[in-house]
Amino acid sequence: MTLDPVLARIDDDLPQATERLFDLLRIPSISTDPAYKEHCDAAADWLVADLASIGVDASKRPTNGHPMVVGHVDGPEGAPHILFYGHYDVQPVDPLELWDNPPFEPQIEDTPKGKVIRGRGSSDDKGQLMTFVEACRAWKAVHGSFPVKITFFFEGEEESGSPSLIPFLKDNGEELQSDVALICDTGMYGEETPAIVTRLRGLLGQEITITGPNKDLHSGMYGGISMNPARVLAKIIAGLHDDNGRVTVPGFYDGVAELPEDIAAQWKGLNFDAKHFLGEVGLSHPAGENDRSALEMIWSRPTCEVNGMKSGYTGDGFKTVLPSVASAKISFRLVSKQDPIKIRESFQNYVQSMLPPDCSVEFKNHGASAAGEMSTDNPAFHAAKSALTDEWPQPAVFTGCGGSIPIAAHFKTYLGTDALLTGFGKDDDQLHSPNEKYDMESFHKGIRSWARILNELGA
Amino acid sequence: MTLDPVLARIDDDLPQATERLFDLLRIPSISTDPAYKEHCDAAADWLVADLASIGVDASKRPTNGHPMVVGHVDGPEGAPHILFYGHYDVQPVDPLELWDNPPFEPQIEDTPKGKVIRGRGSSDDKGQLMTFVEACRAWKAVHGSFPVKITFFFEGEEESGSPSLIPFLKDNGEELQSDVALICDTGMYGEETPAIVTRLRGLLGQEITITGPNKDLHSGMYGGISMNPARVLAKIIAGLHDDNGRVTVPGFYDGVAELPEDIAAQWKGLNFDAKHFLGEVGLSHPAGENDRSALEMIWSRPTCEVNGMKSGYTGDGFKTVLPSVASAKISFRLVSKQDPIKIRESFQNYVQSMLPPDCSVEFKNHGASAAGEMSTDNPAFHAAKSALTDEWPQPAVFTGCGGSIPIAAHFKTYLGTDALLTGFGKDDDQLHSPNEKYDMESFHKGIRSWARILNELGA
Repeated sequence: MTLDPVLARIDDDLPQATERLFDLLRIPSISTDPAYKEHCDAAADWLVADLASIGVDASKRPTNGHPMVVGHVDGPEGAPHILFYGHYDVQPVDPLELWDNPPFEPQIEDTPKGKVIRGRGSSDDKGQLMTFVEACRAWKAVHGSFPVKITFFFEGEEESGSPSLIPFLKDNGEELQSDVALICDTGMYGEETPAIVTRLRGLLGQEITITGPNKDLHSGMYGGISMNPARVLAKIIAGLHDDNGRVTVPGFYDGVAELPEDIAAQWKGLNFDAKHFLGEVGLSHPAGENDRSALEMIWSRPTCEVNGMKSGYTGDGFKTVLPSVASAKISFRLVSKQDPIKIRESFQNYVQSMLPPDCSVEFKNHGASAAGEMSTDNPAFHAAKSALTDEWPQPAVFTGCGGSIPIAAHFKTYLGTDALLTGFGKDDDQLHSPNEKYDMESFHKGIRSWARILNELGA
Repeated sequence: MTLDPVLARIDDDLPQATERLFDLLRIPSISTDPAYKEHCDAAADWLVADLASIGVDASKRPTNGHPMVVGHVDGPEGAPHILFYGHYDVQPVDPLELWDNPPFEPQIEDTPKGKVIRGRGSSDDKGQLMTFVEACRAWKAVHGSFPVKITFFFEGEEESGSPSLIPFLKDNGEELQSDVALICDTGMYGEETPAIVTRLRGLLGQEITITGPNKDLHSGMYGGISMNPARVLAKIIAGLHDDNGRVTVPGFYDGVAELPEDIAAQWKGLNFDAKHFLGEVGLSHPAGENDRSALEMIWSRPTCEVNGMKSGYTGDGFKTVLPSVASAKISFRLVSKQDPIKIRESFQNYVQSMLPPDCSVEFKNHGASAAGEMSTDNPAFHAAKSALTDEWPQPAVFTGCGGSIPIAAHFKTYLGTDALLTGFGKDDDQLHSPNEKYDMESFHKGIRSWARILNELGA
């Protein structure tokens, strides 16, 4: 009775909702690159104005980095209080030449599987964030009010390690209190099955810069006799995994728990098609620990990856230089009770131990968050599961997620709030890659899903 | 009698000679970067015009790459015929931010050890090349003619592997015949001892690009399960040397001869100060084969160096990408009878053998030249040694050179001509690095040295 007109309104308003999303997508809010600072600020302003337009008391909150956006609306007496989190910042766009269209000029494209919204941030996370805002807009338009009390909380540094988040949670803990935090930054399981993520990997980012000679040298005059930092870096990276795909950093597996039997059984039931998953990106062999299933490799086992590596001359042609420095960006995905701080320390000790004479190393930290494992005791989990099941072809499932959404752990730690993660991204959304997209179906049914979840929560 | 007025003329004309060199240094003739093609052409034009101004019949000769410059002047009946070689192209200038002044705005600087000419190409090789041209100019100005028959031969692709050189030598072998080829692209031994290089290392350049997934991936969604090409590249590079500093490519040391006892004895007499040599660039430990002397590491042992390496995100901040490709530029310095083609093959086989499933490799060749060992039987070697000894504080010596000047081997192979390598660079010239310089003393006494050598050769 209360829900149906809201769903109808969402269907009617879809073109306008898409236009609003496009406005937000056009803002190049790349948080990791200081050159885009103003654009991050502009995205925050846009959100404040958009929330205000549906009656939310919203404001931009300065931090040492990019601003937060916080907004509040009241709900009926006795209704639960929810907090909704999303992030308005996006990943860098390089390699730019691989984009078919400019990344910040969003377009609707017809594809064999239906319409998609193409552009950086369409899926991660602006499109997802707006599914919730649009659900609220429809509710407000139809009923003039909201079914629950809502706090909106949008961050602008998620793609760059969220340096301001913990201080902000600490300083504003009271204002951000709620019964449950809803986080929309995850995806569907396949095309038809909505997922609520109850396991998230943590993330530890480390940049290392090895210096050998005090300047770039001529590799003829100095080659052989002078230590080449690129060789040192290669040896460090090569030593990070053993032949079985296990990470060698001492103590790395401390605190890694085996999967509980019930969860293992549920995952087995998902019949994960590793061949298809890898085939989509041109691969055929699971490359992780060789005694683990593919789904474990992604959802419940820790990893170590090189995200970037650079040394010497990398332009066109050839330069016979013996480089002075070599650097790498390395990240670890963490699970269970792995302690990011201890692992950082152990990794740094490992790197130090690999340095030959004449080489020095500089470390730069890029975030350190533990893994998150949710308890599904909070009634919101079952309300959401039921609402999602109503909207989509297949029943909703509890899953894991390979990515790191440290916010979930931080909400638990600093606000004492359980986090419920759901979202409508698809496996082929090309997150963090060129030609990122969000299915129009994800956007449309995503908005409808939130309307249903709000309805269940308010019931 | 014939020489003294030439030397006096050189002394008087030094300011004008420096101005001419500055004109040439201002042309950014970076051969390896296609963006600088026109400037390479302009440098060739400048040389043709400058040679013409001293009565040389000079012209620019097109190739598939940058042009050659060839010029001729006649000498007295019965005088020997020499060919003089230099190269007008220069190395790229990155990292540009480490230059104290713009690389193509040459300046004279006062330093504790005297005046230096600062700018890209000042030492390698425009400054060196002009020492010979200026000696000829002085001779012509004083005597109205030249003491020997001279062919001038300037190349514009030396810093990018000389792709057009061998075809040009083959096509113009008759025109380029001479009794001896003089090559000015090497340095002094220390500050006071002129050197004639009789051993040169060869150079084999290889670029490898490893591809794993067919696009950049999110390291959360795909980390662990997907093979990361940066790890593969690191393992390949890490495996190129053993713990004793020896190169592991199968067959790499085939054809590497031990140093003849007389040369070994002569080198020992040089009392090479490895501590000082390394200390200048911030190092203290010779990093080559651990059973070899420092001078052997540079002059008579083969090496393998990483000149460049790149994968994934290398900008500011952090990007949790699992890269699709990883690439490296790797070069080998070769000695004695090492066969560059066999080593290339063996290296490529090694790389192939290191590829895990799902990874492929693409190779790009960047030059392959064997080492050169000169016979000093040609009378020009002793004439030059005597002339150089007259000009400088210490007697001239026969030495090795770590760098690769493949032209010397090519002259022998394609023209049948012995090459005599001498030059006036100093160890601190910062070749290929930011803030390259050429001592004013190198330039001035270099010109005087060539006048003396011309005199000896014509005697």
